[in-house]
Amino acid sequence: MMKISIEYRVPYADTDQMGVVYYGNYLTLFERARNELMRSCGYTYRECEAEGWMLPVIHAEVDYRSPARYDDLLEITAYVRLQKGVRLEIACEVRRKGEDALLASGFTRHCFVSTADFRPTPPPARLLAALG
Amino acid sequence: MMKISIEYRVPYADTDQMGVVYYGNYLTLFERARNELMRSCGYTYRECEAEGWMLPVIHAEVDYRSPARYDDLLEITAYVRLQKGVRLEIACEVRRKGEDALLASGFTRHCFVSTADFRPTPPPARLLAALG
Amino acid sequence: MMKISIEYRVPYADTDQMGVVYYGNYLTLFERARNELMRSCGYTYRECEAEGWMLPVIHAEVDYRSPARYDDLLEITAYVRLQKGVRLEIACEVRRKGEDALLASGFTRHCFVSTADFRPTPPPARLLAALG
Amino acid sequence: MMKISIEYRVPYADTDQMGVVYYGNYLTLFERARNELMRSCGYTYRECEAEGWMLPVIHAEVDYRSPARYDDLLEITAYVRLQKGVRLEIACEVRRKGEDALLASGFTRHCFVSTADFRPTPPPARLLAALG
Repeated sequence: MMKISIEYRVPYADTDQMGVVYYGNYLTLFERARNELMRSCGYTYRECEAEGWMLPVIHAEVDYRSPARYDDLLEITAYVRLQKGVRLEIACEVRRKGEDALLASGFTRHCFVSTADFRPTPPPARLLAALG
Repeated sequence: MMKISIEYRVPYADTDQMGVVYYGNYLTLFERARNELMRSCGYTYRECEAEGWMLPVIHAEVDYRSPARYDDLLEITAYVRLQKGVRLEIACEVRRKGEDALLASGFTRHCFVSTADFRPTPPPARLLAALG
Repeated sequence: MMKISIEYRVPYADTDQMGVVYYGNYLTLFERARNELMRSCGYTYRECEAEGWMLPVIHAEVDYRSPARYDDLLEITAYVRLQKGVRLEIACEVRRKGEDALLASGFTRHCFVSTADFRPTPPPARLLAALG
Repeated sequence: MMKISIEYRVPYADTDQMGVVYYGNYLTLFERARNELMRSCGYTYRECEAEGWMLPVIHAEVDYRSPARYDDLLEITAYVRLQKGVRLEIACEVRRKGEDALLASGFTRHCFVSTADFRPTPPPARLLAALG
């Protein structure tokens, strides 16, 4: 199974007045990891769009366990947890680099659609091959 | 059951290059509606914090059905779908004002904690009374 | 001179761990006021784009005087401070509603460009007429 | 003169429907570079705050020359352009990695204040020494 991790340094911009990363910003962290997951397949999301596919999010979930804070160096891991027909689900986990404890985890569910008419369409063969 | 709606005009800032509201920004829309839900109870979240309670999000889910776009006037509805012990769940629905179709819906799960030690603590009686 | 004000309630999302609105978020507040300034001219920015003009920002400045905080009800005022050829400058001021003291002020400089080729192009006559 | 650069990959979250990085998000890019500039001085902003100093932004300016886009790998350079008394000015430049052309540039003006009373206060000697 394809699985990648990225590092991310938390800026002030991501925090809120509780002194922790704002809950909505984890979905951007998930996106950053998804982008690199696709790049590691040798097929970036930018290429995917250029060739006629989009992957809008149709569902997202996050479990918040322990807060990430300003200047934390995070490690965000992403992997494909399901690929079936036009559906794709990518799971993400957020930790402080070098620590085992999960700060947050969750997943996004996507649907392959055509950029031409926004209708569900089978995923690009190149990507499927890369995802294994 | 307490239920409120707010209006919100979508700025360019909320959109992404797909020409729609970025998926992570719905969690900020949910927060805007939650804030007004509490205000309508006569007990704002600002007062809640000042009196010693915080309500961190421990889980969030969003279903994305149809995209909101730049300059749309949205109506965001929030209501309490569960309150039991230290748990609180608030559901949110996003529509274009004057239209029935759901653009997105979801909920957030919160835990009442003390601002002093971040430990779970029974919710303020004033808020419980207001939530009915 | 055309001048409008909007109200805006600060969500947690806009704050940072200093307990104040993050400095970058003022540029989104400015945009919200600009959008309503154009709407009040009877010519929304959405229409502007649909008819072939875009107004990218080429320069922005903000003076931060006193911090806005969570749950503040802000009043954001916008007005055209310069319109000459393809240039447009819109000034913005942020205050707490009902208070005189400026929290922040600044301006954005825009250039009318064609959506077809992104080249500078004279502004739509309808908008010029409305701006007076 | 102390000068550092960081790399940054643009996520979808940073873009808007014009297909470019939203103008307000450059101020977050500037912050990311400032954080690393201070780290490279051997004195992170987190330590700075822990020891009693904050560096709120009192003025910010950005010149937008050419748009950054989704998935661009950016190089953001930061350096101190002025340090005098309680004032600090940090300049930032944004380019695509490996290219000379400026996409955006600007600076932020800061004032050293005490975390105890938010009043202007001379900067930490350790930081001054590092800044040279």
